[in-house]
Amino acid sequence: MTEQTIKRIREFVSDRDWAQYHSPANLAKSISIEANELLECFQWSDNDYNLQHVKEELADVLVYCRDMLDILGLDEDEIVNMKMDMNEKKYPVEKAKDNSKKYTEL
Amino acid sequence: MTEQTIKRIREFVSDRDWAQYHSPANLAKSISIEANELLECFQWSDNDYNLQHVKEELADVLVYCRDMLDILGLDEDEIVNMKMDMNEKKYPVEKAKDNSKKYTEL
Amino acid sequence: MTEQTIKRIREFVSDRDWAQYHSPANLAKSISIEANELLECFQWSDNDYNLQHVKEELADVLVYCRDMLDILGLDEDEIVNMKMDMNEKKYPVEKAKDNSKKYTEL
Amino acid sequence: MTEQTIKRIREFVSDRDWAQYHSPANLAKSISIEANELLECFQWSDNDYNLQHVKEELADVLVYCRDMLDILGLDEDEIVNMKMDMNEKKYPVEKAKDNSKKYTEL
Repeated sequence: MTEQTIKRIREFVSDRDWAQYHSPANLAKSISIEANELLECFQWSDNDYNLQHVKEELADVLVYCRDMLDILGLDEDEIVNMKMDMNEKKYPVEKAKDNSKKYTEL
Repeated sequence: MTEQTIKRIREFVSDRDWAQYHSPANLAKSISIEANELLECFQWSDNDYNLQHVKEELADVLVYCRDMLDILGLDEDEIVNMKMDMNEKKYPVEKAKDNSKKYTEL
Repeated sequence: MTEQTIKRIREFVSDRDWAQYHSPANLAKSISIEANELLECFQWSDNDYNLQHVKEELADVLVYCRDMLDILGLDEDEIVNMKMDMNEKKYPVEKAKDNSKKYTEL
Repeated sequence: MTEQTIKRIREFVSDRDWAQYHSPANLAKSISIEANELLECFQWSDNDYNLQHVKEELADVLVYCRDMLDILGLDEDEIVNMKMDMNEKKYPVEKAKDNSKKYTEL
């Protein structure tokens, strides 16, 4: 996400004084709620989905994730790279290749 | 997210040949599943959460969102700005300020 | 669910003094969290699931639903029949037959 | 749930020929989607919720759980009691009393 888009999201929140509602817990609920509106695009079919709806709901998830990074003062690249370090250890290529099993079952 | 982090996520997937599992529907499920692991950090308390767990689960949501952008060939800034256009119309400042009501009830 | 099973769930909660954590909001989070552990059984495949895991996670959803009925003093049959009245109006047989569209698109 | 209510749910499905959409995976998605509509009742506040909405969304979760029990040929009391056996072992009263920690941290 560019700095300009991030700035737009922050101004959207501050213009409406919505930081008061953005506790980490409320944002966690919001991310789950939007993730399920995204999931609803695929409720009865994996392939026959409305791409415009998918874009809108995925964007909603991303916006609330941005809000959560902001409220907690987190750096997106830092936490993603920290988690990728863990994922690379949990799913070594030789075991995980062509395999969708969870690491606990690999 | 920097290009370098995006590249790392893409290589993680391609090294394991996991694109075969990354249908949009499966990724929508995955985003919801990880969003709920994030929500679990706040299951019984809004304030007494483990920040390290929050970082890990939020990162997981972001990684699957990145995978979904990739599989659908979407540009993150484009879809977020498209949705922000909609949000700004649905939630005009004069109505939405200091108000957490849904746009359908404003 | 038989009265005996309901009684067992209630005693499980009261023996542990867990009613203090069972606010409606916390139980709503819990239902979503367990619903997503159920969804995880189908994360990468619709057909290749572990039936024992499915049973356990579906049971968890049902137990938290029971807890929510209890905390709010609701009667399961009453609310389900109230909702079925609504569903039967939203999805008239002649329009909804062989059709998975949402009522807003029927 | 009484036999009469269960019968009503089954006829609702069969009258519309909807069993064709009721794969276990689709129902797992549906339970999660409805659980998140329930969660939305508590998105910005734990206490200021609309009870009528809560009843409707909780009913939706229960109806899809019933559909899933039916499609898999499961007995509700059997799977709940099987899970309660597990829960009672994972959360012994002396450790779990007045404590909301997950069993892995008890």
